[in-house]
Amino acid sequence: MSSFVLGIDIGGTNTQYGLVDESGEVHHSGSLKTRDYSSVEQLAEGIHEKIGEHRIESIGIGAPNGNIHNGTIEHAPNLEWKGIVPLAAVFETKFNVPTRVTNDANVAALGEMQFGAAVNMKNFVVVTLGTGVGSGFVCNGELVYGHSGMAGELGHVIVEPHGRLCGCGRNGCLETYASATGFLRTVDELRTAKKCWSPLINVRRNRLTAELVSRHAKEGDPMAIEAFEITAQFLARGLATAIAITSPEAVILCGGLAQSGDTLLSPTNKHLNEQVLPVFLNTFQLLTSGIKSGNAAVVGAAAVAREIS
Amino acid sequence: MSSFVLGIDIGGTNTQYGLVDESGEVHHSGSLKTRDYSSVEQLAEGIHEKIGEHRIESIGIGAPNGNIHNGTIEHAPNLEWKGIVPLAAVFETKFNVPTRVTNDANVAALGEMQFGAAVNMKNFVVVTLGTGVGSGFVCNGELVYGHSGMAGELGHVIVEPHGRLCGCGRNGCLETYASATGFLRTVDELRTAKKCWSPLINVRRNRLTAELVSRHAKEGDPMAIEAFEITAQFLARGLATAIAITSPEAVILCGGLAQSGDTLLSPTNKHLNEQVLPVFLNTFQLLTSGIKSGNAAVVGAAAVAREIS
Repeated sequence: MSSFVLGIDIGGTNTQYGLVDESGEVHHSGSLKTRDYSSVEQLAEGIHEKIGEHRIESIGIGAPNGNIHNGTIEHAPNLEWKGIVPLAAVFETKFNVPTRVTNDANVAALGEMQFGAAVNMKNFVVVTLGTGVGSGFVCNGELVYGHSGMAGELGHVIVEPHGRLCGCGRNGCLETYASATGFLRTVDELRTAKKCWSPLINVRRNRLTAELVSRHAKEGDPMAIEAFEITAQFLARGLATAIAITSPEAVILCGGLAQSGDTLLSPTNKHLNEQVLPVFLNTFQLLTSGIKSGNAAVVGAAAVAREIS
Repeated sequence: MSSFVLGIDIGGTNTQYGLVDESGEVHHSGSLKTRDYSSVEQLAEGIHEKIGEHRIESIGIGAPNGNIHNGTIEHAPNLEWKGIVPLAAVFETKFNVPTRVTNDANVAALGEMQFGAAVNMKNFVVVTLGTGVGSGFVCNGELVYGHSGMAGELGHVIVEPHGRLCGCGRNGCLETYASATGFLRTVDELRTAKKCWSPLINVRRNRLTAELVSRHAKEGDPMAIEAFEITAQFLARGLATAIAITSPEAVILCGGLAQSGDTLLSPTNKHLNEQVLPVFLNTFQLLTSGIKSGNAAVVGAAAVAREIS
């Protein structure tokens, strides 16, 4: 009989779960609305009902601000559960199996290492470009959780002193430029400046998405192309820092904005080769996620659980 | 009989060597002028003559731009041996024992981990503030060499876009502000600006040293204090980046400028607490080297050799 682990990906909007076998294949997956559950106890109960009597070995959970050392979610700005939430303890009580918690970027890194673009790599970094910017660093074949359990905050490396105000209270964090949110802020600035005409100018703010801008860029819209150019420049600055410190074999971009593919990768590669310390030229590849299923986060979360044994 | 490893620290000016036992104690140490040796073969011969017939198990060498993977020195700007120098191979041939090479900051990190301020730590970083700025990162108890073997270039993280021109050809690297050289450049700018009077104004440029400025700062000279304040601000910016990525338990400052002790540590701590991502507040300590002997580099180099077995 195959051995399952339960992989759970908690996001601000949706919580996805799935039973994952040793080859990374997902069985019995599903999705819940995170905000329907006013406590993690209720969420644990809700998932327990869904997976029924399937036997599981362990649970791995990816969650915003997940702390691997404490098994907690700590002050996650995009979740209703405030303060420090003892997530692992709650799931261990409910399911009676060992449970590990870490942040979504670390989950993505483990997923890429076990089943994606980083198979056989010992040194790489996954950078998630979503609502925020997250990162998971693998050095010497192991995830870097750091002393606090919260390492990998590349999104809060300052790439422009005195730059845009960040949610963390400081200025110029990479996340304010290279997240999907930061990218749309750039698009908005270009729409206001109106240095060239673009159909994007007439799109309502609440209809503006990274995907839409990406489509326009592919069709040659100069304003959309300029937005990717500016974003790539700041992203490259942050990646050059990551490379200088850890010298990865690959930088793997994931998340909403990364789905633009070459529209983002090509200018980022150009700026990265201009900005990186020369000794690191030709030592790394810039890639997008190698996990093609829509279940990457669940597969990655399961990989966190498999680290226990 | 005690088992010795040969630790060698190659610097631009001096090459120090010593036989180090398992407890980190140094026997039969000495120093050679690096520039007296026009090839690494001659240097190996020179050291071989000095240590005579002592039996050694292995050799560890710290050298500028040392590459652990290749056993080479690669394009070191401060050495006469140009291009890619097969250092480990030359010493292995001469001494007939395994030899490892890495850069001086990594050597310092291993030294601190085995015998200094980082004993029992699994996650920390050593930052050397000398002619340049180097760094050695330990994550999960292991040195991070990275895919290229050259990881740990915190000195070339850009802390001020469009800032001072760096030897690497880019602008605003941490090294241009926080190395002993960068620090003196700041002192020089303050001497030129003459916003306040200081006896430093009358010191000849070639007599100006970090040690001298540090002494003036301790005596309350406002210009000297201002120089440390500015340096601390940039240093804190670089350290905040290192902390965001790796979340170390300690940041250990070594090298010439770090010998200023609290004169540097105190303003750096202040700025670091202001600049670091809030989630990392109170998760790290800022320390100076815990290796008190003058042989720290030799002891650290020996620790690199002990990694082989």
